[in-house]
Amino acid sequence: MPERPTQPKADLATRFRAGQVPALARAISIAEDQREGFEELLHELLKAGPSAGRVGFTGPPGAGKSSLLAHVANAYRDWDEGVGIVAVDPTSPYSGGALLGDRIRMNDLATDPGIFIRSMASRGSLGGLATTTKEVLDLMDAFGFERVLVETVGVGQTELEITAAADTVIVVLVPESGDAIQAMKAGLMEIADIFVVNKADRPGAARLAKEVRQALHLRAGHGMEDTTGHHGVDLTQVAREARPTATPAIDSAGWEIPVLETNALEGTGVEALMEAIEKHRAWLEQSGELDARRRDRARGRIRDVVEREMRRAAWSSTEVNDGLTAGVDRIAAGDATPYSVARELLALLLR
Amino acid sequence: MPERPTQPKADLATRFRAGQVPALARAISIAEDQREGFEELLHELLKAGPSAGRVGFTGPPGAGKSSLLAHVANAYRDWDEGVGIVAVDPTSPYSGGALLGDRIRMNDLATDPGIFIRSMASRGSLGGLATTTKEVLDLMDAFGFERVLVETVGVGQTELEITAAADTVIVVLVPESGDAIQAMKAGLMEIADIFVVNKADRPGAARLAKEVRQALHLRAGHGMEDTTGHHGVDLTQVAREARPTATPAIDSAGWEIPVLETNALEGTGVEALMEAIEKHRAWLEQSGELDARRRDRARGRIRDVVEREMRRAAWSSTEVNDGLTAGVDRIAAGDATPYSVARELLALLLR
Repeated sequence: MPERPTQPKADLATRFRAGQVPALARAISIAEDQREGFEELLHELLKAGPSAGRVGFTGPPGAGKSSLLAHVANAYRDWDEGVGIVAVDPTSPYSGGALLGDRIRMNDLATDPGIFIRSMASRGSLGGLATTTKEVLDLMDAFGFERVLVETVGVGQTELEITAAADTVIVVLVPESGDAIQAMKAGLMEIADIFVVNKADRPGAARLAKEVRQALHLRAGHGMEDTTGHHGVDLTQVAREARPTATPAIDSAGWEIPVLETNALEGTGVEALMEAIEKHRAWLEQSGELDARRRDRARGRIRDVVEREMRRAAWSSTEVNDGLTAGVDRIAAGDATPYSVARELLALLLR
Repeated sequence: MPERPTQPKADLATRFRAGQVPALARAISIAEDQREGFEELLHELLKAGPSAGRVGFTGPPGAGKSSLLAHVANAYRDWDEGVGIVAVDPTSPYSGGALLGDRIRMNDLATDPGIFIRSMASRGSLGGLATTTKEVLDLMDAFGFERVLVETVGVGQTELEITAAADTVIVVLVPESGDAIQAMKAGLMEIADIFVVNKADRPGAARLAKEVRQALHLRAGHGMEDTTGHHGVDLTQVAREARPTATPAIDSAGWEIPVLETNALEGTGVEALMEAIEKHRAWLEQSGELDARRRDRARGRIRDVVEREMRRAAWSSTEVNDGLTAGVDRIAAGDATPYSVARELLALLLR
């Protein structure tokens, strides 16, 4: 028996705009896998531009970021707001078991239909992960969640870059994770809008909070940028997506970075954190900083997409791949170097 | 009084080939800073192709890699061989103080004129570091050092990629750094030619060595690749530079990965390590694997250089940058997305 023609299924963009969660999940998968036509889809779905409040959490492993994020997500749910969450999953073998506990706590959120969680593996993407993760954040934003939360672990370039795609960046430290100088070296001072010292009941918490305040004060005053520079931190890629005004850690742009103390296990300090996030949001909007950050992010995204497409164009060309293979033979025979072969291939690629 | 015309100074390539160390240092700086014409210089200096024995050391922070490397370097010096060393300096704030001690031990080597050490910061280069570090290794090789040693810390993509530029990769573990399963997840099984369990006097060292042997055995036997896959380790970029035969952790290509125990502080086990390195070297040459690895590295280098030059071409073009700025305005006005702007810019760039 011949199949009856089915109704044409509403297209993905239509279902996405109608708020159908499976369409969001599918769009994310298409972006993650970079399937044929994914950039056309992103163009279509992201036309409206960003509108969600985006909050990023970063810090060392075991600092309790996921627990804090869960508290913040629950608070938004109490306000009846939809929450999209991206957890960039560390798979470092040296980060220990604390993460698993965090992840389980976060999974409690997954039963709430007003919350959508996506985990992404952080290893192995060589630059691609940061762009893809930002595209997933954009999709959640465009889907209509009022809040989009992202959590990254560690201070690699990828993590800093992702975190800078948030409007409000919360850096979570714990006494065990080292002192304020270390946080400064790691470039955390540059990206933090709010500092949280978690596990505030532990020895050293008050001292760490004090150190961070002093470091922020110093930085705002005189030349702590030098410290960072000497440690080889190059934040150009981060800056691409982040602060148009990178230096004013304190209030030169009008925002005074608060240093809060929390105990995420017991929920202590979460209310003050929510207030700080809202206050930062209001400041972003009033100061024009939100607009500036969004423009910088758009600039960064264009660059990311151009570079990704150039790579794709290069290595999907038969002519270029044939030249590559022939070039390896010539290098092995001593008749060329990678540099002379690359020059020939570039002549095939670039205008 | 007018200055007398000076003799034209011998050019950099001539001085480099004459074995003048300042010329090597200068060539490295030019490559690191990617100064005007650096790829032409590399083409000129690297024409002869690689000939040094390259040994890479990697593993978690505090495993004693630098101490081991110092022992190995000293052994080569006893054989009257020249040694070039590249230490990729971790600036992670969470790695603790052990590194400083290691670094100081390595500095003892710096007084030996037959040893040339270059440190490179590992943070902030966003993909650029791996390529540059490999270029520095090539320069040391071309300069004529019989041995070129490289040390990286950690298991990020960059570190794995750099390590894979060595002919012989030594993975150094310590009981404190976790078990063999963690090493496997981190992709260390794929890149190791020799395993070393250092600090072998500590509790758990023998057990760790046994676990590693079992894991290697399992891997060679049946399907441990799956474990790696499930943890999201994508070694495509590493494979680009590394093993033509990635799977045979044990002896399917004819090499049986030894698991040695050392105590770098006391020098115990260093002799066995030297023997293992020499044995691996002989195997590489006899099996044709050295040639295969060098071809794979040449292929990877061509790709790296092509991608670097495409990025440079894009962002040094006035037309493209003007289009970028105009594009950001149009996105802010809701008339474009990063994807539509990128498509326009790509049309300016690609053939």
